[in-house]
Amino acid sequence: MSDRTLHLAAFAAAGPVSGNHGGWRYPGADLDLLSAGYYRKLGRKLEAARFDLLFIADILAIPTRLENSLDSQLRYGALGALRLEPLSVLSLIAGHTEHLGLAATISTTYFEPYDVARSLATLDHLSGGRAAWNIVTSFQHAEARNFGREDHISHDERYDRADEFLEVACKLWNSWEDGALVRDAAAPLFADPSKVRPIDHRGRWFQVEGPLNVSRPPQGRPVFVQAGASSRGKDFAARWTDVIFVTHASLESAQAFYREMKQRAAAQGRDPDGLKILPGIAPLTGETGEIARAKDALLTDLADAKAGLSTLAYHLDIDLSRFPQDTPLPEIEQPGIHGHYKEVAELTRKHGMSLAQIGKQYAIKTNRDFIGGYKEVADRIEQWFTQSACDGFMIQIPYLFGGLDDFANLVVPELQRRGLFRTDYEGTTLRDRLGLPRP
Amino acid sequence: MSDRTLHLAAFAAAGPVSGNHGGWRYPGADLDLLSAGYYRKLGRKLEAARFDLLFIADILAIPTRLENSLDSQLRYGALGALRLEPLSVLSLIAGHTEHLGLAATISTTYFEPYDVARSLATLDHLSGGRAAWNIVTSFQHAEARNFGREDHISHDERYDRADEFLEVACKLWNSWEDGALVRDAAAPLFADPSKVRPIDHRGRWFQVEGPLNVSRPPQGRPVFVQAGASSRGKDFAARWTDVIFVTHASLESAQAFYREMKQRAAAQGRDPDGLKILPGIAPLTGETGEIARAKDALLTDLADAKAGLSTLAYHLDIDLSRFPQDTPLPEIEQPGIHGHYKEVAELTRKHGMSLAQIGKQYAIKTNRDFIGGYKEVADRIEQWFTQSACDGFMIQIPYLFGGLDDFANLVVPELQRRGLFRTDYEGTTLRDRLGLPRP
Repeated sequence: MSDRTLHLAAFAAAGPVSGNHGGWRYPGADLDLLSAGYYRKLGRKLEAARFDLLFIADILAIPTRLENSLDSQLRYGALGALRLEPLSVLSLIAGHTEHLGLAATISTTYFEPYDVARSLATLDHLSGGRAAWNIVTSFQHAEARNFGREDHISHDERYDRADEFLEVACKLWNSWEDGALVRDAAAPLFADPSKVRPIDHRGRWFQVEGPLNVSRPPQGRPVFVQAGASSRGKDFAARWTDVIFVTHASLESAQAFYREMKQRAAAQGRDPDGLKILPGIAPLTGETGEIARAKDALLTDLADAKAGLSTLAYHLDIDLSRFPQDTPLPEIEQPGIHGHYKEVAELTRKHGMSLAQIGKQYAIKTNRDFIGGYKEVADRIEQWFTQSACDGFMIQIPYLFGGLDDFANLVVPELQRRGLFRTDYEGTTLRDRLGLPRP
Repeated sequence: MSDRTLHLAAFAAAGPVSGNHGGWRYPGADLDLLSAGYYRKLGRKLEAARFDLLFIADILAIPTRLENSLDSQLRYGALGALRLEPLSVLSLIAGHTEHLGLAATISTTYFEPYDVARSLATLDHLSGGRAAWNIVTSFQHAEARNFGREDHISHDERYDRADEFLEVACKLWNSWEDGALVRDAAAPLFADPSKVRPIDHRGRWFQVEGPLNVSRPPQGRPVFVQAGASSRGKDFAARWTDVIFVTHASLESAQAFYREMKQRAAAQGRDPDGLKILPGIAPLTGETGEIARAKDALLTDLADAKAGLSTLAYHLDIDLSRFPQDTPLPEIEQPGIHGHYKEVAELTRKHGMSLAQIGKQYAIKTNRDFIGGYKEVADRIEQWFTQSACDGFMIQIPYLFGGLDDFANLVVPELQRRGLFRTDYEGTTLRDRLGLPRP
């Protein structure tokens, strides 16, 4: 094993699409995605493959950005067509796994910090210290309108609110000292009142008295995951985040982002090693390159360009049907997700793609560098990892469960043979796996 | 089996006290109440005993009503000292059970209907149609102050908000027609856009566009559970509720409540059989009456009067330390929980108890009619059931897991021998078990 450790997270949605938009249509794909058995299987397979964590994405509405309609999302089973609530799904998986980290996407825009801090503390307790929080701010009109607002709040205000949300949550997790929960039946002393204190937070966005009614979580606080690639998002990540997850169209842009973020963390007085950077990639593999490329051809055929355009319209927060489909991507000043905009803009520049082509490409994932026989995929992973583009990867599974089985049965053993990836779990908590200190 | 079916629900908290305040101090009590294993065990034991459902109570703050302090709750491990978030706990249990209904307590006062409807739809899907919602309104100052408010809103306003909250939630569950989720990979048609519609709700409390991003739950909507005993609470229950749960100090008051609620349901044009009334009782049993009473003596000794007073102060929403402890219960115009106030007032009248005595009694449960050998307990259950006091019971378990084992191993088989209780599960969903139609 090299002295740096490669980390593998799995990106999934409790809905039809985790990676490729053609995935749910792939022959043999498991479509029982409302059932306990589906998520139990997902958790167990990832744990058998020694993944660090399972990450569940989320949205608080079915996107309507394309043509102001639900149609494209629902019909094509696009990224936001259906989503079970992630904390419930992860709690269920917590009961069927012992080592796998569990990252829930929860917005700081429409929820209350007391509720979120409590739910994540609960997951951290129930899982024995494996909870993570993918911190997002909500930018969709459709989401705002499900939560009593005509429109979403501005980008910078969302981040201001998120900053204060995190402050409150951390205060709540610290409102019980370690050791406050005594459970001494003889005394009696269930909890030591001198070690549990109100937080009396009074800020711009939140007034919260506390304390939390759950004792301090095993990890102190859950691992913070975040995908911010805007300037404000990077500041936020450098300040708060343990794990950053951003997609890139090329090795070069991943390297530039990696350098920048490690520097930003250092500038905040943090150990850059305490910030793990996991680019999102969509590996598609097989026993040979030929098999992998044949699978990719089938998947590409099954992924509808309109499904991709619908998801891209949601990610960029702009109705892409308003523009002629044979023109390039328009300039967007304030895109919904900056990271995805940069990725697609880079692609457009490089290959001169039209909107229709971009839709198709987005449906099958923009970064196509990780498609090939398992040795090729392992080569590329090794290259990115050793050439300072990342600390590991967020694996977007092209289809379930075959695409996961191929990666787990072919690529993971190859990475293990090369000494790049763990063969067994060490430590107890997700922080232990990621090499992060307990706050 | 008689033509009426007895229903058994188990009342539990994801914290130290489910029934008796001495329970967590009882020799051999399992105090590992932050772990997955504890809840897995609870769910499996209840399912083995053929319970209809597990009910998890909740509070959104550690109560501070007694002496404006956290001290009594934390020190004595009283009812609100610690509470894991119930939906997470029930999702975990859903993965380890197949038949048991799962009732989560969720307040309509501080959450958003989109989020709650979605979480409960998720639990209903993951459990294959076993979700229930214990609908509560929040009345504690301490809760208000954890959610950005100086004080809680008035009793009637809370119920107005709850009414509209339920309307929105029902609209969201109906925003996907049955059969809208097609999952036809060949077409492709993931979901049929003509069967999924926005709800466009615009009310006094909520503006929600919808649709939900989860398809219609297996039960249509989760089973509604409620404990309202105030006049407004009874109206609400007669309109909405499938299962009512109220504690009573005597058979007579249970009978009066049963008559009244069945009439109220009929007056709303409902089939009275569609409203199930399950009084909360705290059975404590053993192989003989002598053993049961010896256990009760030990539990009574372990339950601190101040713990009971602390919980009662929270339930009545009044600082009972302000009154001389040798005086009777004061008159309270607007108690936090009307049902508990009525129960304690009846007791005070009957036995002329002082506040100190009431505290002790409240710590060990006010209704002491269900303590005895298993045949005695079964007799009393049969009496209440056949004499029109109830359709079954909400069993408050005195201590875990011994108190549950005794009930499950002794009383349940006796009820089954008498043909009063099921020996195996029939049907698929919780609605099937309870004999409720699918909306």
